[in-house]
Amino acid sequence: MSVPPRYRARSRVDVSGEESRAKAVQVATELFALTGFKGTSVAAVAARTGLSQSGLLHHFPSKAALLTAVLEERDRQDGDFLAGGDGPPLGWAAFDALAALVARNSARPHLVGLFVRLAAEATEPAHPAHQWIHQHYNGLKQWLTEAVTTGQREGEIAQDAPITAIVRTTIAVVDGLQQQWLLEPDQVSMTAEFETFTATLRARWGR
Amino acid sequence: MSVPPRYRARSRVDVSGEESRAKAVQVATELFALTGFKGTSVAAVAARTGLSQSGLLHHFPSKAALLTAVLEERDRQDGDFLAGGDGPPLGWAAFDALAALVARNSARPHLVGLFVRLAAEATEPAHPAHQWIHQHYNGLKQWLTEAVTTGQREGEIAQDAPITAIVRTTIAVVDGLQQQWLLEPDQVSMTAEFETFTATLRARWGR
Repeated sequence: MSVPPRYRARSRVDVSGEESRAKAVQVATELFALTGFKGTSVAAVAARTGLSQSGLLHHFPSKAALLTAVLEERDRQDGDFLAGGDGPPLGWAAFDALAALVARNSARPHLVGLFVRLAAEATEPAHPAHQWIHQHYNGLKQWLTEAVTTGQREGEIAQDAPITAIVRTTIAVVDGLQQQWLLEPDQVSMTAEFETFTATLRARWGR
Repeated sequence: MSVPPRYRARSRVDVSGEESRAKAVQVATELFALTGFKGTSVAAVAARTGLSQSGLLHHFPSKAALLTAVLEERDRQDGDFLAGGDGPPLGWAAFDALAALVARNSARPHLVGLFVRLAAEATEPAHPAHQWIHQHYNGLKQWLTEAVTTGQREGEIAQDAPITAIVRTTIAVVDGLQQQWLLEPDQVSMTAEFETFTATLRARWGR
């Protein structure tokens, strides 16, 4: 055999570790969504994952680290949803994809609540999710900036459209509507309000 | 004397109680802004107010209740600022007043941070600031709705302008920009982005 046994053994451990890690993130997502961050214990996540508490803490040194992993996984899944198999949509299609994501979020109040609360807490530099929240906004900003500049190059968005303002206010509307919707889920349609917002952008800056 | 002594006595106690209460709110605002909510102790607020800890707890049963009072006072002061002595501005003038408030907030990062974090936490029904956050958004919604309908009546806003969407997305932009600004204070101009947003609203729905 060309591969020394100790490397194979380590490789097997890694694979199993990765599976446990993914399982723990999935379990934690379900429990956080059902019973909230505060109402979920590390012990409960460990038990449902089939790990000891110290086994779980090996992957995630704290409950906050587990939550960060849940939110990174949510960002990854949202990224896949937005890309729809063909890579991220650009031009106005990016805003349509975002509207579809807003509609999808309207069925996930617990996850939206977790996101809103953690994003706010994580503005403090010492917060364990501070790096995650920067990555989250940087990813969104880069994609939407590319979407607008591509739309300009292809002639569907005006050359003088204020790129930064469009990108930042679009992200702000998504976030701000979530805050209002969590307080009055029966009174607020995030999808309708977001679509009216993007229609206004299109009326003003579309070509 | 026409006023029985026991009423005078009680009245004096009430006035002094109200002064202590107001002083405590002012002290707490300064301390929360300087050292954050977590970094501020009830004991420190009591000492600087000139009250015993139990004296302070008589007015505010918990640190969360003290924070709610700070935020209610901030809403009251913001309301005074927006009204500018002449009552709340209506029509597009309301959006100009809001832009001035956004500019003012750009010099108050600690208070904005407190607001953003507490508003997010308070979406949970059991949170001590849950009633405050409802009042905050209801007040804003009522004022902006009246601003838009007055603008329509006076012919400066189109009859078919989508009132609810304009009101909700305007509030969302203010909130969402705060979240981004707290993370990148040197990269984000809340005032510039908000003014571009309202200029877009005016271009689309102005008459």
